[in-house]
Amino acid sequence: MQATVLYGERDIRFEDRPEPTIVEATDAILRLPFTCICGSDLWPYRGIQAVSSPVPMGHEYCGVVEEVGRGVTSIKPGQFVIGSFFASDNTCPHCRHGYQTSCQRFEPVVGAQAPRMRVPLAEGTLVATRELPDAEMIPSLLALSDVMGTGWFAADAANVKPGATVAVVGDGAVGLLGVLSAKQMGAERIIAMSRHASRQTLAREFGATDIVTERGDAGVERIKQLTKGIGADSVLECVGTQESMLQAIKATRPGGHVGYVGVPHGVSLDGQQLFFSHVHLHGGPAPVRTYLPKLIDLVFNGTINPGKVFDLVLPLAEVAEGYRAMDERRAIKTLLQP
Amino acid sequence: MQATVLYGERDIRFEDRPEPTIVEATDAILRLPFTCICGSDLWPYRGIQAVSSPVPMGHEYCGVVEEVGRGVTSIKPGQFVIGSFFASDNTCPHCRHGYQTSCQRFEPVVGAQAPRMRVPLAEGTLVATRELPDAEMIPSLLALSDVMGTGWFAADAANVKPGATVAVVGDGAVGLLGVLSAKQMGAERIIAMSRHASRQTLAREFGATDIVTERGDAGVERIKQLTKGIGADSVLECVGTQESMLQAIKATRPGGHVGYVGVPHGVSLDGQQLFFSHVHLHGGPAPVRTYLPKLIDLVFNGTINPGKVFDLVLPLAEVAEGYRAMDERRAIKTLLQP
Repeated sequence: MQATVLYGERDIRFEDRPEPTIVEATDAILRLPFTCICGSDLWPYRGIQAVSSPVPMGHEYCGVVEEVGRGVTSIKPGQFVIGSFFASDNTCPHCRHGYQTSCQRFEPVVGAQAPRMRVPLAEGTLVATRELPDAEMIPSLLALSDVMGTGWFAADAANVKPGATVAVVGDGAVGLLGVLSAKQMGAERIIAMSRHASRQTLAREFGATDIVTERGDAGVERIKQLTKGIGADSVLECVGTQESMLQAIKATRPGGHVGYVGVPHGVSLDGQQLFFSHVHLHGGPAPVRTYLPKLIDLVFNGTINPGKVFDLVLPLAEVAEGYRAMDERRAIKTLLQP
Repeated sequence: MQATVLYGERDIRFEDRPEPTIVEATDAILRLPFTCICGSDLWPYRGIQAVSSPVPMGHEYCGVVEEVGRGVTSIKPGQFVIGSFFASDNTCPHCRHGYQTSCQRFEPVVGAQAPRMRVPLAEGTLVATRELPDAEMIPSLLALSDVMGTGWFAADAANVKPGATVAVVGDGAVGLLGVLSAKQMGAERIIAMSRHASRQTLAREFGATDIVTERGDAGVERIKQLTKGIGADSVLECVGTQESMLQAIKATRPGGHVGYVGVPHGVSLDGQQLFFSHVHLHGGPAPVRTYLPKLIDLVFNGTINPGKVFDLVLPLAEVAEGYRAMDERRAIKTLLQP
């Protein structure tokens, strides 16, 4: 088959790769009707995260089970499944506490920008839908694998409650779906920080009540103005830079919560500044597996449509253009068709 | 009157100072039957926190109201009162959320190592007892003003729940009272980190079930061993150094909670390490005012006796020896009698 490999900075190739096969008894092989590119794929693409050897790309996936290892019984060929970007056994103490992305046996999932892929720890990682989805529902189910699950975790980690005032730092797919998540959790006011017209429009469609275009301390000042000098109850940090993290902490009221899901790059927090900010801080790689059953229901019953973040559709063979479009912020998120 | 002033590193003087008077209409003047020295007083005493001019010392207090400003109505002369180490109006939005130590009008309280003192924002800061306490109860009420309230906040910020496994980093008065707080909140297992026999004894008396004498990564390893490799549900950080903070974070299970109350000195947290630790982090200056009514009840009905942390009693005139004893860790906490 042909699949996506990153060779180095901005060097994406679509090339011959071996067909995936069952390696461990706990594996499954999926056929992927769609796949996509993640904002976090841009870190290595941009060279900010160095790659020492060619890397098969893609960690977001849903599709039809083709084959399972002999240790897999609850997941069966023919089922439509969605899994998290980290594989987990879903039975260890950390999984049982709902933190499957810290599973004691965790394995990264790779190679999803391809027509077929191998998923390790299939029984713990995959969730089957109650029936085969219609084709138009698949992009929304695909979004659950990472960006929607991550936006939901950001809102959950930021303790969004009914009636809350929420701010969202970052207008990528995760930030936009953080807006959608906060809305679902009953937030009364949702302030999206964005300076891109198309993203602002989608943020409003997902439930944002206010848009702040300023960044850094000016952005913090604007949020303070909008909240009578108090700050937001909950702030979702969906970028991962020093500036965005400080923006999130400073925009939160004392006693409020920051949920941070942007993988930190070059972030260092001063202990005393954090101490006197009085904020709650929680985040990390989103335990998507915990949320999948609920989010699948919300997609199936039409309550949420996170697939709207895909604003560019390309044949998988044109994956390199998909990366370029996201790198240059011409696209929020690229959907790829094998 | 004669009172305590810090002139510079290890230069504590007991000298003539003006009697406190009502400056603002919201002030109260208290007479202090006892006063004491705080672990946080050791930061400037040791020169780690520089002082540019002589500083009246002491921020922990309880006593009898002698006089109030004309704006004070709910607090009356003759009442026995306890207040927080930070003055607050108890009416601003941050106070109403229970974070009085981030009060929009907050003022530090100073000069409590004296026979009399001025408390600003008296109505918001002070809580009166239902009756005058017996003399032997006063040290426990005095402890509520900071160390007990701070230990309680550490446990609350660390989300201690019935049945939880808790670890406490730091065996000063705050750490020991963190043990007592965790016990009150129903923790099943409480691991105290201490290498001092007398402090270990008090930790056990307050409810510790295990003692760990190792520090740093060895201490973390020991806690992992004691918890089947999982880590603690809740960890109370009661020191404020880089080592103690990392010890707390690493000893917590993914999804668990770190409550940190040691004022950070030279602490810097790496964003990516924090991200992948998956812990909840909350702390800051303890909002003692929130907890005072409950803690006063627990002292009055004999449930807790936090005054046990005072293991050295001196006349106030010998305050300099009290600092030396704590600096050299000969005493956990010094009680001073004016």
